Amino acid sequence: MRLVRYGRPGKEKPGLVDEEGRLRDLSGVIPDIDASVLSDRVLRKIARIDYKTLPLVRSTPRFGVPVKGIGKFIGIGMNYSDHAAEINAPIPKEPIMFMKAISCLSGPDDPIQLPKGSKKTDWEVELGVVIGTRAQHVSEEDALKHVAGYCVVNDVSERAFQFEMGSQWDKGKGCDTFGPVGPWLVTRDEVYDVQDLNMYLELNGKRMQTGNTSSMIFSVAQIVSYVSRFMTLEPGDIICTGTPPGVGHGRAPQRYLKKGDTLRLGIEGLGEQQQEVLAFPKA
Amino acid sequence: MRLVRYGRPGKEKPGLVDEEGRLRDLSGVIPDIDASVLSDRVLRKIARIDYKTLPLVRSTPRFGVPVKGIGKFIGIGMNYSDHAAEINAPIPKEPIMFMKAISCLSGPDDPIQLPKGSKKTDWEVELGVVIGTRAQHVSEEDALKHVAGYCVVNDVSERAFQFEMGSQWDKGKGCDTFGPVGPWLVTRDEVYDVQDLNMYLELNGKRMQTGNTSSMIFSVAQIVSYVSRFMTLEPGDIICTGTPPGVGHGRAPQRYLKKGDTLRLGIEGLGEQQQEVLAFPKA
Repeated sequence: MRLVRYGRPGKEKPGLVDEEGRLRDLSGVIPDIDASVLSDRVLRKIARIDYKTLPLVRSTPRFGVPVKGIGKFIGIGMNYSDHAAEINAPIPKEPIMFMKAISCLSGPDDPIQLPKGSKKTDWEVELGVVIGTRAQHVSEEDALKHVAGYCVVNDVSERAFQFEMGSQWDKGKGCDTFGPVGPWLVTRDEVYDVQDLNMYLELNGKRMQTGNTSSMIFSVAQIVSYVSRFMTLEPGDIICTGTPPGVGHGRAPQRYLKKGDTLRLGIEGLGEQQQEVLAFPKA
Repeated sequence: MRLVRYGRPGKEKPGLVDEEGRLRDLSGVIPDIDASVLSDRVLRKIARIDYKTLPLVRSTPRFGVPVKGIGKFIGIGMNYSDHAAEINAPIPKEPIMFMKAISCLSGPDDPIQLPKGSKKTDWEVELGVVIGTRAQHVSEEDALKHVAGYCVVNDVSERAFQFEMGSQWDKGKGCDTFGPVGPWLVTRDEVYDVQDLNMYLELNGKRMQTGNTSSMIFSVAQIVSYVSRFMTLEPGDIICTGTPPGVGHGRAPQRYLKKGDTLRLGIEGLGEQQQEVLAFPKA
């Protein structure tokens, strides 16, 4: 299933995108897409509904973050060997973990707002992993059973805030609007091989990032297992799993986002995001 | 006011500790202590109630985290010059910011569970700042107006996870039970000078940390103002503001927590926490 939340910010309703790509309303079935519906059991129950009985949504509404009530938004850094190389970082021996503030969560097509004083805001297309059931010290073998599904994440990052203002990255990772997620939460059963998904990002129509999840240093199963050693993962938590090469910080000359830029990014089978870049304060 | 949440985990009720130190039930007045009651306006309304009309709670229940629905749990590192010195860290030029996973939040007297494989779990008594109203790019002058109140936090940290497994501290800061908060949320109006509060921590009855918030490198107002440049602070967010000297990592020889240890820690006017240390898995 491709689950979505659609409507105005804070007023989103649950929906699904059917096999023909049409948006259907799920609000008669579940009140929202949150921790309570992310287990295999409940997802299977929703999947058994004849989608043709669900009301079609005839407008083309905004999409919100496809999961409500996200508790943790965890990032993995330097997880593509070719990306680590482009920014002169060593290949990590174990996953680098940081956290994005949940206040940065944003709909997939909502604008990115440059933070006040930002000169180095950058893009990062990433595979997002949505946790479906509580995971604590899970093995690599069992890890994917705790995953509800996958989504596109733009792990927007301010490089000066991240690298030049102390040792800790979180300062540059959680600015408002720095976490576009969606459009869809694609349930795990519909992703044939999560380690073989093409991904891309375009800036103003020009291809910047081209990658495939097969180039991850640590696989999704390894990441979920690893993170679950340091904190209990709860349903609705999202982990974004690192970005392939082509970020602005790694280019020569470096290229950062500026007002009026547009981004288009996506992952095979998981849909596409489009963002316009706004100056601070929001226009 | 000294606001509390009391009762079994997940079933806490709102209460207040009156001038005589007696616990009174607030559940007839507000459903819980969460973002909706943290503004000055609502807090003043609660303060106007004649507390003698509130039912006394005659049992001695467990205390929970005094705020429900915390979105962000932000930490400031190396914010006491004498603590930075004891662990051979330079005095930071600007606040070092990291994040604690909200899944680590724990009642003030709930046990600390050593993570699996932990050899270097350490204590840190800290002043916690609870945000009362949304703060985005607030000035130092206005910063404290956005604070609902203060509390004791034990910023429990696993030093191997924090320092020896990559560059980012979050791995060692957010393990389950690593965030005891409380017992009370003391409203801002009752803290005469937040930059002159004595604080202490004892391990098995022996004094380990002795400090005063006057030794902070960056004041509470500076921290709130600074953090609000990087992310919007929302009501209920908590910032813990760094620890004075005396952590186990800074001692010679180093001393880390082990099963059966007990901690007692507190801050002048903000109450006291007591934790027992349990092995993993929880007994």
